[in-house]
Amino acid sequence: MNEQAKALRKGAQLIPNGMLEDNYPRNMWWCAARVDEVTATPMARWLLERPVVLYRLSDGTPVALDNRCPHRWAPLSDGRVIDDRIVCPYHGMQFGADGVCAKVPTQNTVPKSAKVQSFPLRESGAFVWIWMGDPEKIDHDPVDMSYTTDPDWSFVTGYMEVGANWVLIRENVLDLTHIAFLHANTFKQSDWDNVPEVSMEGETVVYRQDFAPSPLSPLFCAGFGFEDGKVVKREQEGRMPSLAVSFSDWNVHDIDAKPGERVDYLVRGCHIVTPSVRGRTHYFWGAAFDVPGIPDEVAEKTRRNVVAAFDEDKDLLQKIQAQVTIDPRGLDYPEINLAADGAGVRVRQILKRKLDAERGA
Amino acid sequence: MNEQAKALRKGAQLIPNGMLEDNYPRNMWWCAARVDEVTATPMARWLLERPVVLYRLSDGTPVALDNRCPHRWAPLSDGRVIDDRIVCPYHGMQFGADGVCAKVPTQNTVPKSAKVQSFPLRESGAFVWIWMGDPEKIDHDPVDMSYTTDPDWSFVTGYMEVGANWVLIRENVLDLTHIAFLHANTFKQSDWDNVPEVSMEGETVVYRQDFAPSPLSPLFCAGFGFEDGKVVKREQEGRMPSLAVSFSDWNVHDIDAKPGERVDYLVRGCHIVTPSVRGRTHYFWGAAFDVPGIPDEVAEKTRRNVVAAFDEDKDLLQKIQAQVTIDPRGLDYPEINLAADGAGVRVRQILKRKLDAERGA
Amino acid sequence: MNEQAKALRKGAQLIPNGMLEDNYPRNMWWCAARVDEVTATPMARWLLERPVVLYRLSDGTPVALDNRCPHRWAPLSDGRVIDDRIVCPYHGMQFGADGVCAKVPTQNTVPKSAKVQSFPLRESGAFVWIWMGDPEKIDHDPVDMSYTTDPDWSFVTGYMEVGANWVLIRENVLDLTHIAFLHANTFKQSDWDNVPEVSMEGETVVYRQDFAPSPLSPLFCAGFGFEDGKVVKREQEGRMPSLAVSFSDWNVHDIDAKPGERVDYLVRGCHIVTPSVRGRTHYFWGAAFDVPGIPDEVAEKTRRNVVAAFDEDKDLLQKIQAQVTIDPRGLDYPEINLAADGAGVRVRQILKRKLDAERGA
Repeated sequence: MNEQAKALRKGAQLIPNGMLEDNYPRNMWWCAARVDEVTATPMARWLLERPVVLYRLSDGTPVALDNRCPHRWAPLSDGRVIDDRIVCPYHGMQFGADGVCAKVPTQNTVPKSAKVQSFPLRESGAFVWIWMGDPEKIDHDPVDMSYTTDPDWSFVTGYMEVGANWVLIRENVLDLTHIAFLHANTFKQSDWDNVPEVSMEGETVVYRQDFAPSPLSPLFCAGFGFEDGKVVKREQEGRMPSLAVSFSDWNVHDIDAKPGERVDYLVRGCHIVTPSVRGRTHYFWGAAFDVPGIPDEVAEKTRRNVVAAFDEDKDLLQKIQAQVTIDPRGLDYPEINLAADGAGVRVRQILKRKLDAERGA
Repeated sequence: MNEQAKALRKGAQLIPNGMLEDNYPRNMWWCAARVDEVTATPMARWLLERPVVLYRLSDGTPVALDNRCPHRWAPLSDGRVIDDRIVCPYHGMQFGADGVCAKVPTQNTVPKSAKVQSFPLRESGAFVWIWMGDPEKIDHDPVDMSYTTDPDWSFVTGYMEVGANWVLIRENVLDLTHIAFLHANTFKQSDWDNVPEVSMEGETVVYRQDFAPSPLSPLFCAGFGFEDGKVVKREQEGRMPSLAVSFSDWNVHDIDAKPGERVDYLVRGCHIVTPSVRGRTHYFWGAAFDVPGIPDEVAEKTRRNVVAAFDEDKDLLQKIQAQVTIDPRGLDYPEINLAADGAGVRVRQILKRKLDAERGA
Repeated sequence: MNEQAKALRKGAQLIPNGMLEDNYPRNMWWCAARVDEVTATPMARWLLERPVVLYRLSDGTPVALDNRCPHRWAPLSDGRVIDDRIVCPYHGMQFGADGVCAKVPTQNTVPKSAKVQSFPLRESGAFVWIWMGDPEKIDHDPVDMSYTTDPDWSFVTGYMEVGANWVLIRENVLDLTHIAFLHANTFKQSDWDNVPEVSMEGETVVYRQDFAPSPLSPLFCAGFGFEDGKVVKREQEGRMPSLAVSFSDWNVHDIDAKPGERVDYLVRGCHIVTPSVRGRTHYFWGAAFDVPGIPDEVAEKTRRNVVAAFDEDKDLLQKIQAQVTIDPRGLDYPEINLAADGAGVRVRQILKRKLDAERGA
């Protein structure tokens, strides 16, 4: 390493962010799917680098099993569900919701060891949550997502698979000062260029920031029935109650409201990430307006606009991940923090504590 | 590992099947090509993770050489054969059938070390067989495949490259109880859901099973001139005389034959596998009817139907291989055997003996 | 290893050519780009397995920086250049041409460690040259390429990315006896089948060879205004003044020239290679005729013909590289030298000395 390279290294933090590694705790609830994705027809999905098959019993109970038959390792997701048992596509072995083999077509007895791991699932709001760690360590519920199915709200949602480690997305959505730069042409919210106040409420990371009156991002105007460019006061509040979920609340105040008209509005973003295979992440996003029944065309327009903006994140994060993967220096590169990284740094601290606890166990 | 995972592991065999590893003996005959593929024009093919060039001399003798010039490593298969010598496409060095360099265009003498490995080849039936191990250890002939070119038989054949280790195909074709499940819509032979009798005849694995009268698979009806759905008695017999080749004999008895009419028919499947590059296999298959000269359109229809069925195997085996490759647990996953795995387990035993013998050498 | 394989190994040199490894010295000038590629709009390019961003200041000075922001590792090349500073696309940090961060939008002070490595650049002829090693070790200028922009010459040039290590290209262009074989249908210069005289002039590898009158390659006839098939005398001279650059001079003598007509002509090939990511190389080529102002259509025809020929090299070298990558023997394969390898062997000697010197440092 020459002198210039050494000087660059000096003073920079070498944060062990483990961005490209197996950096996901297992003793927590991760999002497995949207509620409507899980049906009587089995679905394969990689979650935390494990192949999982998801399906629903006739009484509606969702089931998650290791998607690998213990006989010759066929993916159970290629089979069918018959009488609430999933049938292996290869030799027809049948497994119950508990993962235990209930029938082998070619013999009368079932080997005791013929079973696959089953994973606890819970539904909260529009999403199904999975616990892939030790089921005896379940000590809390999934994050309350009831507002996503509350008829008093209008919930716009979408999914994208991102070719980047989940932490890259998590940090992205907890430092929104990038909106002024990366999303200059989509969010068009150019005032977000200074640092919010960050704190912890218990285990929840929280940031807050007030903005002087300025035009509201066109992404959200339609959802409230505002004309594009409407000037409002905003209070931004973000919360991350779990590494799997964070919210971005846009509290909007209509400074032109006439007496008797509504003054306060809220659009709540949610950012749900689940590790998939190495270097890839399932990203479920939502934008919920606290007004009921926005018309389909407005919801669709909002969805399109949000996707255009989030595609900018996806494209950049994928480039970062790809570059780190190809660069022989890998993670061994200086990484400095700025004042705006307060929330992101807390993510890493929480993550490190959880990983240390699980690895020590 | 949590308690549930530990319990799953307990009692399951951890068979070291080496599914994704270098699990192919070299001191045996593997199939290199169909006879008609090997011509005066060189052909490149990966065999047992080695690049090989195959071509034919003017007297018809087939030749196999290491496809890597010892000068600057160009693939000889890009060159031409002139006067029974293969000419390197890069600098024109010429090699004889024994792999020894016979001419260097730019100099008068040939370096003594200028040679590539040549591999013994033999033809048997419609196929060319290669010995990639120690030529001094050749102690037997390739499997007798003479029926494949016998005019008293009608031989339908095909080739597919499968993205899975060769053992996955080998086990697949030696446990046909999967026909009732994986091929429910193609073979339509739904009675094959119990376990055949398995034995060894010398080094040949053999299975046998009798079936009560039932409709013959539509895959084979046309070849015998039967109408689809014809009810017949069947005796199934399989034989694996070599890890490279196995046969599936469908012995069919026409229970409606009128006096003087033919009663017994045979369609012999053959399954020839050769490792290619890591995780990929050349799969040559055949279906031979013991009736001469079936019409081209019947042969073509049979070929199409067999391919449709074998594509179901290919698709599933490729999914298994891909999943094992991505899953960080890899081969470290429980694997249980069923009664129907009698023949497959013998494959593994034979394979283990051969590999141990070669590695000990 | 059996007896035949052992015998093949014996007597063959096992040259540690490091063909697929990190085999590029850093303390030298490599070509980063053509002069016209570097503009005010940032361009990303991998050079010596490092992501680099190239752009030009308002006064025309070219700049090269590590293309990885020290904050959250975004590629700076996705940003814009404003007031001669490159702006990170993610959070808007600004960096000067020296790589030092000059502004963080969200805070008033700039962390001392906020900087990226900057690389010295020089322009020579039509190309921009980069020094990626220790800048204090710069002890020479890039190779003089002034003829490439000299109006007395006509310079035809092109670029291709080749999926092979740079040494494969370097050896290819220093042993032109392959023209008689690999390029039989493009160069059509069939007399090049014996060995040139090779010598060192200081650190420059030189080869020379005289040819009896024969038809000049159709690749070059048009550039001089010759009819195809024109018989000329040739003296070929090659020079490699740097591992990054070599020249092939075709000195052509018109043996039919009438008194007073021009007799001597020169077309100078140049072969500029720069390692990209592992196993890939940037290849800038040129063919310069020592006649001014050849018409555009002749230049274009020449370009097309040269590309057709060089595509033959690219295709073969990529096959060699791919085969070595897949073959488990990798570099552990015999490699013999021929008399024609005099220049190529000197390349390896120079390379080995430079790598040893840098690694010892």
